[in-house]
Amino acid sequence: MNLAEELAKQQRSISVAEFFERNKHLLGFDSPTRGVITTIKEAVDNSLDACEEAMVLPDIYIAIRKQPGEVFRIIVEDNGPGIVPRQVPYVFGKLLYGSRFHQIKQSRGQQGIGISAAVLYAQLTTGLPTVVISRTGPDHPAVRFEVQIDIETNEPDIVSQQEIDWDRTHGTRIQIEFRSTLAAKKRLIEYLKYTSVVNPHARLRLELDDETILFDRVSDDVIACAQAIKPHPHGIEIGQFRRMIAPGSGKLEDFLSANFSRVGSKTAREICIRAGLPCTRDAGSLSPEEQKRLIDAMQEVKVPAPPVTQCLSPIGEDLITRSLEKEFQMDFVRARTRPGSVFSGNPFIIEAAIGYGGKIAPEGNAQIMRFANRVPLMYQQGACAITQAIAGMNWKNYNIPQAGLPTGPLLILVHVASTSVPFTSESKDAIAAIPEIEREIVLALQDLGRDLKLFLSRRDRNRIQEDRARAVCAILPDLAAKVAEIVEQPLPDISSIEGKVMKKLVARKRTDHTAVVIELSNYTAHPATLSLYSISADPADDAQPPPDFVTLLDEEYTKVWQVTVAPGESWQTRFTGTGRGSLEVRGIDPRQIVVVDQDV
Amino acid sequence: MNLAEELAKQQRSISVAEFFERNKHLLGFDSPTRGVITTIKEAVDNSLDACEEAMVLPDIYIAIRKQPGEVFRIIVEDNGPGIVPRQVPYVFGKLLYGSRFHQIKQSRGQQGIGISAAVLYAQLTTGLPTVVISRTGPDHPAVRFEVQIDIETNEPDIVSQQEIDWDRTHGTRIQIEFRSTLAAKKRLIEYLKYTSVVNPHARLRLELDDETILFDRVSDDVIACAQAIKPHPHGIEIGQFRRMIAPGSGKLEDFLSANFSRVGSKTAREICIRAGLPCTRDAGSLSPEEQKRLIDAMQEVKVPAPPVTQCLSPIGEDLITRSLEKEFQMDFVRARTRPGSVFSGNPFIIEAAIGYGGKIAPEGNAQIMRFANRVPLMYQQGACAITQAIAGMNWKNYNIPQAGLPTGPLLILVHVASTSVPFTSESKDAIAAIPEIEREIVLALQDLGRDLKLFLSRRDRNRIQEDRARAVCAILPDLAAKVAEIVEQPLPDISSIEGKVMKKLVARKRTDHTAVVIELSNYTAHPATLSLYSISADPADDAQPPPDFVTLLDEEYTKVWQVTVAPGESWQTRFTGTGRGSLEVRGIDPRQIVVVDQDV
Repeated sequence: MNLAEELAKQQRSISVAEFFERNKHLLGFDSPTRGVITTIKEAVDNSLDACEEAMVLPDIYIAIRKQPGEVFRIIVEDNGPGIVPRQVPYVFGKLLYGSRFHQIKQSRGQQGIGISAAVLYAQLTTGLPTVVISRTGPDHPAVRFEVQIDIETNEPDIVSQQEIDWDRTHGTRIQIEFRSTLAAKKRLIEYLKYTSVVNPHARLRLELDDETILFDRVSDDVIACAQAIKPHPHGIEIGQFRRMIAPGSGKLEDFLSANFSRVGSKTAREICIRAGLPCTRDAGSLSPEEQKRLIDAMQEVKVPAPPVTQCLSPIGEDLITRSLEKEFQMDFVRARTRPGSVFSGNPFIIEAAIGYGGKIAPEGNAQIMRFANRVPLMYQQGACAITQAIAGMNWKNYNIPQAGLPTGPLLILVHVASTSVPFTSESKDAIAAIPEIEREIVLALQDLGRDLKLFLSRRDRNRIQEDRARAVCAILPDLAAKVAEIVEQPLPDISSIEGKVMKKLVARKRTDHTAVVIELSNYTAHPATLSLYSISADPADDAQPPPDFVTLLDEEYTKVWQVTVAPGESWQTRFTGTGRGSLEVRGIDPRQIVVVDQDV
Repeated sequence: MNLAEELAKQQRSISVAEFFERNKHLLGFDSPTRGVITTIKEAVDNSLDACEEAMVLPDIYIAIRKQPGEVFRIIVEDNGPGIVPRQVPYVFGKLLYGSRFHQIKQSRGQQGIGISAAVLYAQLTTGLPTVVISRTGPDHPAVRFEVQIDIETNEPDIVSQQEIDWDRTHGTRIQIEFRSTLAAKKRLIEYLKYTSVVNPHARLRLELDDETILFDRVSDDVIACAQAIKPHPHGIEIGQFRRMIAPGSGKLEDFLSANFSRVGSKTAREICIRAGLPCTRDAGSLSPEEQKRLIDAMQEVKVPAPPVTQCLSPIGEDLITRSLEKEFQMDFVRARTRPGSVFSGNPFIIEAAIGYGGKIAPEGNAQIMRFANRVPLMYQQGACAITQAIAGMNWKNYNIPQAGLPTGPLLILVHVASTSVPFTSESKDAIAAIPEIEREIVLALQDLGRDLKLFLSRRDRNRIQEDRARAVCAILPDLAAKVAEIVEQPLPDISSIEGKVMKKLVARKRTDHTAVVIELSNYTAHPATLSLYSISADPADDAQPPPDFVTLLDEEYTKVWQVTVAPGESWQTRFTGTGRGSLEVRGIDPRQIVVVDQDV
């Protein structure tokens, strides 16, 4: 049985770097092509976060250059605040190092893993260190580093360090090389497009295969950076609490109101009373049992929700709608920003949008666009709580067919903004199935679904009415002929009736002796603007109102009136002439107008 | 711009323990109920691995006990080899520590995270340390520890340590308490059932809510523990290679053949030649550029696949089939163990099984059972490469309807066995989409699909034949009556014709004067065994062959013959008597037999 001793010899500590080198797929490096996108995504996230903190409009340059032997060089350069030289090796050469992990606020990077994972992957596949240039201001020199990670200790290994000349006054540039076969160009461009949609203040420039693609900024407003908040008393666990408390933490009442969000002295006293502890008790002296009582009391006392708007930065309904309208022509689009909510003490906000019809692919599953803290999620759609929430809804309630996911010309956008987005893995591709988050997504989509249903039923009602009108119009000529025959009158002009029934515009030309009359009636519900062309031998010198311009070609005068007619109104012009020639209409969908030339 | 200095102040190293405390959902602790299953799973995995290494038949006791205040105490105790006292604090009190991470062989635990994650979760939610008792043999005392993790350093914190009396001679017991609301009893039992299916040598006993459930072993053969192998030259990355090489590694040729799987001196020399390096060169003296050339040469030279059977331990087709048959009564079941294969240098084997019909739920999606290294995967089915491979196949090719997943009374089992299973997260719930693995799964299922299709088409053909036969039999009596009328003969007995047409058994009794004849004809394709009961006033003393036993009740003799008839054969007995009374048949599905009593 001294196998135990033998087994003990094999027991070893595993460094974080070693762990993630082996499990690189957890970091989004399961395939070399995906590695390219993951690297760019992590670098761009960092650049956007840094620019936001520095209140700078981001200007980010991305380049991908093929090197000899299946190696790609990736460069990402920004105009952010730069990184002080002593920190550069840690930011890039150590996994689990960063500024945002310990802050409670919305940011793109949260884990302190992202970009150092790319450094790790580069040195694993090519053995090359990553080159970083950074400058923190005009009064400081730019510093160039070659950095890699010591796998066995997870500490940075500085291969070289030197001051250099750089034309930027502040910013960071990284250059990273790894083995890859770039095939995901389409997805990369999609990623940058989506990133630019939700970051309208950013300018992204991609250089790839001798081609430069620019995603320019559409807004010059710097996004207000979210502010860090303190932890909320609901959702605090005893383990965390113990680390906050220390000898010298002061009176319990003061400790609580100083260290927790939404806890003033009144709430602090209420917590103490409920826990059966004096408010003046030294917080650092609580026994484990008393700590537990305090934690329980903190959960039970009513405390307002965390200050969501302060620590989160949602995109906003207006921007989502406008961005989607720009990218996709749709018949319907509507967005919703839900009120703030909380899971395990972490504030979050759900935003969603639904688009329908137009140029969205009419067949197959709905197109789903997923975002977390303004970052598009490009992989693992099936594993994401967003997808599961969508698939779990009954879309037939909203007249949308469904086969697992809803189908048809439907686009669904969901943005999860949180101080701590619960991703299913370190690669940050999919959101974990947290019930509170799923519920909020469903509420947002149900709300939008009701709007969509209203739109669809109106559209269907309009279609039915149009079908009926079309049926009436089809028998009108026969009806008119029959009536004319009975009353022994000539056949009446029925075009204006048709226009009224069909809710269209009617343009009509007729000639009484030597007076030519051109008339435009608007039977639609909207004002209409169009151009009327009368082409004939008549010069129309005495036309009232006169044409906007006249051209003479081959003894024919083309007379043009630009006309705007309010719904229910008519417009008319008359002039002396023979009325021969033609009447044409331009600047309007021909299906919306009936043109009648009674002189023909 | 001295924001950079300000930002630098917030930069901090993040401990692994801190990282996973925040991201506990990555470890399978996203909800308290799930935490219970994750904890038991990690503890049982460890016990099974340890018993396998010690060649011991595992005897594992699991208990869940409700404590006051929404706290559950979980106990897992095994008869494994035990853990030496100096290692206990590290195994349970430090994330990323273990014996199996650095070995290339199939094992359940691989990451060095599992059980310490449960310790972390316990201390976070209840503040309580985990209690571990371990003993390595009768000559060693049992030692009891209270352990927790120092979150800021990820080092073990020993709360107490003492020698105690314990009735076991070797084994380990852990006791862990955390806040939870146990609601997943069904899933827990399912997990244990599936575990016992693929570990037939294990005995698992669960105590829950005053109820004891035993999953007993069905085999006394200890599973042969997989053997660790060396890394394979294909799939080695330059980063790993550099860590293997060191000054004093010896001659290149010797270094290669000593450190890589399947590399003998001949292959080693071939690699050197292709890399343009002398075989006698000191391996530790290679320049980075020479290292790269060597790595490239290692990929290009032909090397046999890794010794898969040595380092992997598949379940086997026979055991899979028998286990499934025991759990589900099915009309069809077939299993396949694929030949070994490799992804990124890691050997793996895919095993799969398909079951159809019988007691499998006839409606809805196919039931999918996923296993990795003999561990059932209980969560995140949608995110798993197994599910994606199944959904990506065209099941209509095998006459199985499909709506995303195949539907109907179908069960699909897939087992991925590998020296390094690529899970999508540390919680080990789903397998990442590695193309080589997906391809092997599809190949296994296609193979089984063809067998299933054959079964289904035979069944359908049999059904059609049966329908035709039924139609013939339906008109037989009329036909017989008509023929009898024409030829002026009494109505013939058509039961044997019916038996022949329908491919059934026919039991018939008739009486000629004072001789009673009982006859059994087998028109099926299989031998049939059944009991014939003749109940009448006839004692049948002279029956040839005589009945197997006779009972007398109320002046009626019940005579019983146990009869086996080969396909196409007949059996007969005759005795003196009146032939009155009845003929009954037992021990066979009544639909397979026609009983005709011509005396009635």
